[in-house]
Amino acid sequence: MKNLKGACIFGQSGGPTSVINASAAGVFTQALKEEYITAVYGAAHGIKGILDEDFYDMSKEDTKQFELLKTTPSSALGSVRYKLKNPDVDDTDYRRILEVFKKYNIRYFFYNGGNDSMDTTNKISKFLQKSGYECNVIGVPKTIDNDLFGTDHCPGYGSASRYVATTLMEIYQDAYVYDTPMITVVEIMGRNAGWLTASAALASYKGSGPDLIYLPEVPFTIEKFLSDVRKIFKKTGKVIVAFSEGCKDADGTYIAEMGAELTKDAFGHAQLGGAAAVLAKKAKEEFGCKVRGIEFSLMQRCGAHIASKTDVDEAFATGQKAVKAAVSGITDHMVAFERETVDGNYKCNLKLVNLSLSANTEKTVPAEWINEEGNFVTDEFIKYALPLIQGDSHPPYVDGLPYFAKLKKVQAGKNK
Amino acid sequence: MKNLKGACIFGQSGGPTSVINASAAGVFTQALKEEYITAVYGAAHGIKGILDEDFYDMSKEDTKQFELLKTTPSSALGSVRYKLKNPDVDDTDYRRILEVFKKYNIRYFFYNGGNDSMDTTNKISKFLQKSGYECNVIGVPKTIDNDLFGTDHCPGYGSASRYVATTLMEIYQDAYVYDTPMITVVEIMGRNAGWLTASAALASYKGSGPDLIYLPEVPFTIEKFLSDVRKIFKKTGKVIVAFSEGCKDADGTYIAEMGAELTKDAFGHAQLGGAAAVLAKKAKEEFGCKVRGIEFSLMQRCGAHIASKTDVDEAFATGQKAVKAAVSGITDHMVAFERETVDGNYKCNLKLVNLSLSANTEKTVPAEWINEEGNFVTDEFIKYALPLIQGDSHPPYVDGLPYFAKLKKVQAGKNK
Repeated sequence: MKNLKGACIFGQSGGPTSVINASAAGVFTQALKEEYITAVYGAAHGIKGILDEDFYDMSKEDTKQFELLKTTPSSALGSVRYKLKNPDVDDTDYRRILEVFKKYNIRYFFYNGGNDSMDTTNKISKFLQKSGYECNVIGVPKTIDNDLFGTDHCPGYGSASRYVATTLMEIYQDAYVYDTPMITVVEIMGRNAGWLTASAALASYKGSGPDLIYLPEVPFTIEKFLSDVRKIFKKTGKVIVAFSEGCKDADGTYIAEMGAELTKDAFGHAQLGGAAAVLAKKAKEEFGCKVRGIEFSLMQRCGAHIASKTDVDEAFATGQKAVKAAVSGITDHMVAFERETVDGNYKCNLKLVNLSLSANTEKTVPAEWINEEGNFVTDEFIKYALPLIQGDSHPPYVDGLPYFAKLKKVQAGKNK
Repeated sequence: MKNLKGACIFGQSGGPTSVINASAAGVFTQALKEEYITAVYGAAHGIKGILDEDFYDMSKEDTKQFELLKTTPSSALGSVRYKLKNPDVDDTDYRRILEVFKKYNIRYFFYNGGNDSMDTTNKISKFLQKSGYECNVIGVPKTIDNDLFGTDHCPGYGSASRYVATTLMEIYQDAYVYDTPMITVVEIMGRNAGWLTASAALASYKGSGPDLIYLPEVPFTIEKFLSDVRKIFKKTGKVIVAFSEGCKDADGTYIAEMGAELTKDAFGHAQLGGAAAVLAKKAKEEFGCKVRGIEFSLMQRCGAHIASKTDVDEAFATGQKAVKAAVSGITDHMVAFERETVDGNYKCNLKLVNLSLSANTEKTVPAEWINEEGNFVTDEFIKYALPLIQGDSHPPYVDGLPYFAKLKKVQAGKNK
């Protein structure tokens, strides 16, 4: 569907990252340059903004703000966790989306998110096709979990990794300060894939990181955990453990479930967290020494002050690429990364993968990158992750504090 | 006691900070220049290293490492929480210290720490005087709690403040991302003084910080907390709360005590933490919405990657000043800061205060800097704190990760 003339709309979806706004900046700056794009809309709270006709005219923004978006964490337009129904069962939302797209002559749809969001994008794309409405749909990947299928890695992952590795290196310095036994257990995000938790190994690679790393890819038992800890504790009296909030036993019971009631999000996924306290309690009972449970909580996904420049630049590029691809007539795809090694140096090429492929398929850490004991990762992982955390990107500082983008958000939807 | 010729020893004590090593660098670089100082020792784990004759010859270190110490968090020599007995009851430790000082002709003693450490320094100083042993003793202040008496502020506080304010600004971005109600409660360190928690107001001053701030200076009740939250929740559906781990009710019961057993450190102080979970649970029960409890845990005191340059420079200067003062014949004092405003600009002058004054006297946030409702701080606090977080100091990055000092630690104590 080449030479489609019409408006474009961009939405942000799912849990925010440090660089989701960098992708937005990439989309907006590119879209505003394209002659076939007649209007550039930013949806408030993703798909919900489209359903509610709640979106902004991005041409009204100061372009300086797009530059600031590159270093502003979280989601400037607002995000959403909204699950579209199976259109074969209930196509109400899809018909509403079509109605809105027709009303505003929206011919380009860009959606930024992870697995669930790519599923949403895919379903909308297929419905529009079936309806015979010409609209080029491109997914823009994003997730600190790094679990999207069909791409070498995901925007957002590098920055979260850099947060995890840097903070663990600092915690290591702190944990070794007293001449007394101590166990530190650090909980890192990642529902079903251990990519982010594995980043803890980057700190160990630098000589000051955790002794043990547990990923959701390996069934977790408290007994094995205590036995692993005991071996190190006996030798040094100091143990640092990094583990994923997604770790579960062979029956699928999360560590966190052993200690607290879980709430569920709109996709039915358990809202995790609290597992650090559970493991800390077990370790305290077993070893009787000082034990500290630490959660990286929201900080790991919004720590823009320690973002990876590589990640920020790549996130921006995915936004640009999505627009260029759509305008060139491509639809029904997601922007993805392909790694190339040139003279031993990392190079990241952009490519496009079919939306159906990336939607809802989770990419986990390869079994061969996890050690035999199931409590650490191999050097292959270090080779993979290290290039992704390179370069220092932080917001401009004013009065010693970050200066974030502030959009005007001029309403363009008629409903508001 | 001018023109004393002999060795000097420096020790680090209490909870580490991002800049305690910067003070060490100040002491070492200055001491190595002084002709009256014949040897420069660094005690392993503070006073414990002196008792055990476990200390390092700092002249054997590469001076490049002293430069790296400025941006290396935590305590490079190792710290300690060891309470000296009242010398009138049991002077064993004091006699041992005197013995070690005599053995190595230690004539200069520098001790870096907070209230408890200044008490230790004071007791040693007085014992040495009483024993007729000539030794110039100078305390070097340090605490993220900022509660040392006799000084405008303390090294370590500015960097921890910058971590708290920056991270809260990021969390604010994240917490506002969904169009659904949410309450976020953030627990910040500070046992009896709310200085660090008050720093959360710097984020609010920048337009993206907490709505409510609770300090230990004001008796805390769950009822008042819930009523404060309700007022904001009704209006916006979003509430961010910053509160001190040291908050307690009128009877002295800590919030954390309402939820978990507390362990105590060597000084008999309760090891706090876990209060965020208690408040999050209460808020969840009351409002039924999504609630997130976050602890800044160790990160707030070791986040050297976001340290304040002002703080790092001042910490270094206190170390230098301690040495210069001691060599000039001064003893029994602590280095302190005096603020001067020159043409509207912040200027920090160094001074000396009597050790007896600063030991064990806690400086809390003035009542007039806390609002009438007891749930926020006034602009006076902003004026006070803002100059302390200025300037960006981070470790050199290698492979995208911090590069920390690594001391050789050549043993100089005969016991090892």
